Amino acid sequence: MKTTDVSRAALGRIPVYLRFLESLPQDTETVSATVIAKELGFGEVQVRKDLGAICGSGKPRIGYTVSDLKKCLGGLIDSRNGKAVIVGAGKLGRALLDYGGFSDYGLDILAAFDTEVPPNGESEKPILPLDGLADFCKKNNVSIGVIAVPAEAAQEVCDKLCQSGIKAVMSFAPCRLTAPEGVAVQYENMALSLAHLKAQIKQ
Amino acid sequence: MKTTDVSRAALGRIPVYLRFLESLPQDTETVSATVIAKELGFGEVQVRKDLGAICGSGKPRIGYTVSDLKKCLGGLIDSRNGKAVIVGAGKLGRALLDYGGFSDYGLDILAAFDTEVPPNGESEKPILPLDGLADFCKKNNVSIGVIAVPAEAAQEVCDKLCQSGIKAVMSFAPCRLTAPEGVAVQYENMALSLAHLKAQIKQ
Repeated sequence: MKTTDVSRAALGRIPVYLRFLESLPQDTETVSATVIAKELGFGEVQVRKDLGAICGSGKPRIGYTVSDLKKCLGGLIDSRNGKAVIVGAGKLGRALLDYGGFSDYGLDILAAFDTEVPPNGESEKPILPLDGLADFCKKNNVSIGVIAVPAEAAQEVCDKLCQSGIKAVMSFAPCRLTAPEGVAVQYENMALSLAHLKAQIKQ
Repeated sequence: MKTTDVSRAALGRIPVYLRFLESLPQDTETVSATVIAKELGFGEVQVRKDLGAICGSGKPRIGYTVSDLKKCLGGLIDSRNGKAVIVGAGKLGRALLDYGGFSDYGLDILAAFDTEVPPNGESEKPILPLDGLADFCKKNNVSIGVIAVPAEAAQEVCDKLCQSGIKAVMSFAPCRLTAPEGVAVQYENMALSLAHLKAQIKQ
């Protein structure tokens, strides 16, 4: 099972399933899709479909072995390739640096980089000078770069990240980027998301 | 033509088309899909499909009347229902407040609200006390609320927004929300986006 085969919606539910499984009493050996659906307020069909696609079917009348299910779901969001850095330590970059939800998906944001390093604020994670980006990424085996700089600086940052051995780039800058083959690029466009929401407002 | 009928990808290209049309010399009367595609580096098939779906076909050998095309594309991202407020003036809320890309989509972020109003920083837009949320939204005909508070406060904020006459909610908090019927809710999950990107890294 590869993560790429799992729908984005199902991937979003994995941390929810895992948190539920972790919350079960230690001596719980098995759990059924019916119980999971009821406890989480999900549809039973959906739970069966999610777990079936990721971990195969449970045993009739018994359901899934809890430890197997944890291993299977957890394996899907393991921490391989999960090390990331942010370039751009403005408000957005620092918001991302302190955002707590990444570890649920096996992601580990190690540091942010910027040309001007702001005075160390409340953040527990370091903000480092951009000069050291390549060394840091190579030493720490970083595979994801998040671009949180203005559009005019984004391509230069993208080039720097690719030269640092990054395998995937997520950009919040509102412009297209060119990256070498083999580097995945994803664009986050918050304005577009909001525009889509606006379109759903009933007149 | 309703915005809801346009794909997210096409919606994302509308500001690009509009910016190109605005950049044409004032006396340009018509423009063809071929020229637009070439200038913007898009595929011609894509441009024809986008414009055809939104504004109908151009005239053979002539293309589109520039003023008609501007009116048609611009109408789709008009500013109806585009007024928004942010609740939560932490790093993320303030990053959103200052983000310049929203106006491209007919969105207007008017202000951020928080229980504790931080000292007015560099932001040009006001950060206001949460007490005044309902009055502000009603007076200014605000229809979109963006939730940028921690998960534990998100439902309360969502309730407050709905009581203030908001028609659509976008939440960055990592939890499910309950909203009255008729209020559209959309979740932004940056960790999930990054997890998806991670899944694309070739092993």
